[in-house]
Amino acid sequence: MAGGTGTRFWPQSTIKKPKQLLCIGTKKPLLNMTLDRITPIIPSQRQVIVTGDLIVDEVAKAAPKIPQKNIISEPARRNTAPCILLAAKLIEKKDPAAVMCVLPSDHLIKREKEFLSILSNAGDLAASKNVLITLGITARYPETGYGYIEFGEKSGTIHGRDYFEIASFREKPDVETAKKYIGKGNFSWNSGMFVWSVKSIIRAIKKFLPETYNAFDPIDNAQSTADIKTAIDEIYTKIKGVSIDYGIMEKAGNIVGFPADIGWDDVGAWTSLEGLVEADENGNHSQGHFVAIDSAGCVTSSQKGIIVGIGVKDLIIVRTKNATLVCDKKRAQEIKKVFDELEKRDLLEFI
Amino acid sequence: MAGGTGTRFWPQSTIKKPKQLLCIGTKKPLLNMTLDRITPIIPSQRQVIVTGDLIVDEVAKAAPKIPQKNIISEPARRNTAPCILLAAKLIEKKDPAAVMCVLPSDHLIKREKEFLSILSNAGDLAASKNVLITLGITARYPETGYGYIEFGEKSGTIHGRDYFEIASFREKPDVETAKKYIGKGNFSWNSGMFVWSVKSIIRAIKKFLPETYNAFDPIDNAQSTADIKTAIDEIYTKIKGVSIDYGIMEKAGNIVGFPADIGWDDVGAWTSLEGLVEADENGNHSQGHFVAIDSAGCVTSSQKGIIVGIGVKDLIIVRTKNATLVCDKKRAQEIKKVFDELEKRDLLEFI
Repeated sequence: MAGGTGTRFWPQSTIKKPKQLLCIGTKKPLLNMTLDRITPIIPSQRQVIVTGDLIVDEVAKAAPKIPQKNIISEPARRNTAPCILLAAKLIEKKDPAAVMCVLPSDHLIKREKEFLSILSNAGDLAASKNVLITLGITARYPETGYGYIEFGEKSGTIHGRDYFEIASFREKPDVETAKKYIGKGNFSWNSGMFVWSVKSIIRAIKKFLPETYNAFDPIDNAQSTADIKTAIDEIYTKIKGVSIDYGIMEKAGNIVGFPADIGWDDVGAWTSLEGLVEADENGNHSQGHFVAIDSAGCVTSSQKGIIVGIGVKDLIIVRTKNATLVCDKKRAQEIKKVFDELEKRDLLEFI
Repeated sequence: MAGGTGTRFWPQSTIKKPKQLLCIGTKKPLLNMTLDRITPIIPSQRQVIVTGDLIVDEVAKAAPKIPQKNIISEPARRNTAPCILLAAKLIEKKDPAAVMCVLPSDHLIKREKEFLSILSNAGDLAASKNVLITLGITARYPETGYGYIEFGEKSGTIHGRDYFEIASFREKPDVETAKKYIGKGNFSWNSGMFVWSVKSIIRAIKKFLPETYNAFDPIDNAQSTADIKTAIDEIYTKIKGVSIDYGIMEKAGNIVGFPADIGWDDVGAWTSLEGLVEADENGNHSQGHFVAIDSAGCVTSSQKGIIVGIGVKDLIIVRTKNATLVCDKKRAQEIKKVFDELEKRDLLEFI
């Protein structure tokens, strides 16, 4: 899934170059890290990218190993359920027995070997059983920025790896609730990573999101790339946006979860750099040149040119060719507001 | 005098484009404003610029109306006394009876008519009497960033305008002392603007700075522009830096002062923009685009591209093609430190 807009990384991310195409504390763009990471078990020929019309060319350029026909473009953003159904139907055309892993393209995973082992085990389970599998990230601290998954009874074991029933999905909690979750021990972070057979997920969408399911009929008869594009354009004028979590996972009965202790980071905001690049002696975390004079606790990123701070504290400072952002570190989540603000002021060239 | 480095306006000012060549809250560069302002009484043919080797070409380009031979370049910075002696000796060659006005090229004056009237009156006095005239700016508030001039008894009147003896020159005071000065009523800000005959100032330098005076002998026999340049290069390897205030004004007995209520602003730091450009509804003063989201009391300048603030207060934010500065507004005076800091880190391309 590479359709995100990454508005929280403005000004480095723009509508034409969103977060997944950027290096955020990394040497390669997050999209490429995602693709390269899974290549040992899912070769490029079987990697499918669903992205948006605005950035599809950039995505194709960034991922030259992926076959052109595996790069699918949505004409409008309709959240995760339509995106997943679209991919599932196109994969089903090639292989009705296929198992698919659904992965965001803009997250980081440090423990790659363990991650691939979980995906393999989950894939084998999905191939043999009508289950919808979610990966629950071992929660390390009471984060309020993520949804949580409450694991229930053990459901089974595959290749020596246990998987569990899901007792509940929980929305982003307040800090007290998050602390309670961590205390209980059976709560994981919801990473938005899933494994299932195309059959199972299509069946679930047919049952729980029949309108969405029916709207996708035109895909069935489309054969050529051009026909498929026409069908997609037609479908996307009709469907409503709905997330796979709300639309399917919170409703279906056949959900199981694999605990995943894989060093996952959703790279959710500029403050994520604090976990990704080393600090200087005053706790400033920087990509590119930052000259800190009596300045501490800052997160900075400069693609070109330098940033100098004098007597400043706990600021996010990001500089690109066209814009400079200076933001209180506590308000990193509000950076997405900039898009609206610039639109309001008719400064569209900067978003 | 156009030899300043304007380090407090980094990153907009650089060693190759210092403050006098910039528009700081103005539409024209400060140098051009200085030249244009005096043209009604001192035509371009009689304007002389003393500047530095590094920027002389930029200065000549910025001031095309000034005859090439009136643009004098110093190979090294030696403070104001040598600069003034150099100009005085070169002017004396053309007209031994000349009167000169010495003016910084990077200040602003709002009440131009009154300013020119004072210069005219002072010029007439200087032509007829061996006095060194300083302009004392009517002090409007207890500023601690300026030196002060204590006016004494009335010395005389010319064309209906009174001028005064000088009781003392005072260094930049602390705030309590500054308040006392304002309370007394006979203290003015020292603007560094002077009027005198070339004869009088040369005579004073001979008396109080004999080493400097003697070092300038080679100028006397130099005739061509090339000879003069060679002489200057030779002189400047020998002389020490000394200010006209310390070297002459604080020592000579024939000083008089004209009170000048002329809307003067020395444009001393980025915070000067607060007096030069209008504030938005949150007290942000900006040159160029500043999108303020919950941000107040900032001073911003962007030559290219936009600046966005989120939840920030009382910051100076300046953006150029190569650099971004973010500085606590209380520390505007420390921006000059950046030059040293960048030198230390071998980031010379940014200064």
